[in-house]
Amino acid sequence: MTGFVTFVSAGPGDPDLLTVKAVKALQAADAVLFDDLSSGPILALARDGADLVGVGKRAGRASPKQDHVSRLLVDYALTGARVVRLKSGDAGIFGRLEEELDALQTADIPFEIIPGVTTASAAAAAAGIPLTRRLHAQRLQFITAADTSGNLPPGLNLPALADPQATTVVFMGKRTFPALAAALIAHGLSPDTPALLAEAVSQPDQRLHRTTISALAAMLANDRSPLPGLILFGPLAEEGTVP
Amino acid sequence: MTGFVTFVSAGPGDPDLLTVKAVKALQAADAVLFDDLSSGPILALARDGADLVGVGKRAGRASPKQDHVSRLLVDYALTGARVVRLKSGDAGIFGRLEEELDALQTADIPFEIIPGVTTASAAAAAAGIPLTRRLHAQRLQFITAADTSGNLPPGLNLPALADPQATTVVFMGKRTFPALAAALIAHGLSPDTPALLAEAVSQPDQRLHRTTISALAAMLANDRSPLPGLILFGPLAEEGTVP
Repeated sequence: MTGFVTFVSAGPGDPDLLTVKAVKALQAADAVLFDDLSSGPILALARDGADLVGVGKRAGRASPKQDHVSRLLVDYALTGARVVRLKSGDAGIFGRLEEELDALQTADIPFEIIPGVTTASAAAAAAGIPLTRRLHAQRLQFITAADTSGNLPPGLNLPALADPQATTVVFMGKRTFPALAAALIAHGLSPDTPALLAEAVSQPDQRLHRTTISALAAMLANDRSPLPGLILFGPLAEEGTVP
Repeated sequence: MTGFVTFVSAGPGDPDLLTVKAVKALQAADAVLFDDLSSGPILALARDGADLVGVGKRAGRASPKQDHVSRLLVDYALTGARVVRLKSGDAGIFGRLEEELDALQTADIPFEIIPGVTTASAAAAAAGIPLTRRLHAQRLQFITAADTSGNLPPGLNLPALADPQATTVVFMGKRTFPALAAALIAHGLSPDTPALLAEAVSQPDQRLHRTTISALAAMLANDRSPLPGLILFGPLAEEGTVP
């Protein structure tokens, strides 16, 4: 009796930014394994009687251990349950999907991935800007700026990131942005490159702050805000409807 | 009497990959302006009596002219209508949103952007792979490989695109991929770099083809398939559930 696992992309936070397919999967689930970041109103879509299991992985923290989450996922599926593994944003983009996929494939458990709205798209939409523009912002790139211990990951391609013609979106980058900005400026990116800090995107406490990479680095050096944030920089970050 | 324009991201094609918010906007619209690529079952969600207006802009073609589309959008909004401008994928990613946003801002017409599922996320999900992996695929980058005349755009950052540690997604790149692959290989990317061609993603005629960048370039040099396609290359393209 083998169950089935559906990786559901929860989107940036607003339940209305779930896909129709994600809503259906949540409503059909016997068990929903969720991280702290994607809980709340979205979980309310699960049917009465479904097991809601917080696996408590937080951004930049390793507790509980990833292999514990994978084991729990496999164990639930082996009971024959329809399991939803809820991931914030788009599951395939910095969602650490890989360890859990490997565990399911090893245990021969079938799965499906439901793609979703990445927080990068939602942040740009909230700010009223596109992420690309013909001729001026031809390349769009996403990185995460925190490894498992919360530090700037080794091996970043700094020349690629310092390209003034790209739009760059930094996930989980608030804490390390002062170091990242210094490295980018050392690689030739202008300190005046427009930047946008988007916190709690699509949620009631959403905050958008328009600035430059150097001013943002100075601001974040003393940041105490607990809100999860995403940083977007490049020529397009100065456009849109944010004052 | 000023109307309101909602840019609705239609996602890759499957109506179930619309967000709940997008469905609500379609149901409330007085007029829906759509491109060919995003028509069909999604338009069926509009209410009876809504104007459905094909503006017929096709990938790589300039007909009808973009400024005609922008003018139509403004004209509809000035009648006081709730206008939906439907864009395939995520509207902010290679959706040519910029000209239409500029036209609305010039005419002082309020608007909202509803973010959606980019076809890149949907293609990876269909293939059973994540787009990023800690340490091995740290950077995710998107480009379009067709300018308005269908040729490889000038000024591509080839060193950034030839990075073997990145996952690269090429939108509208089937026709120009032989030229792009040759340029990437000349910049040091291995001809054996795994690649995935994803056509008609999330639609009934979806096709996924796993290969390498050099074999894909050879294949596409003689391609006659009319299906819209997206190309993904990098270390992760060889994983997943596609045979």
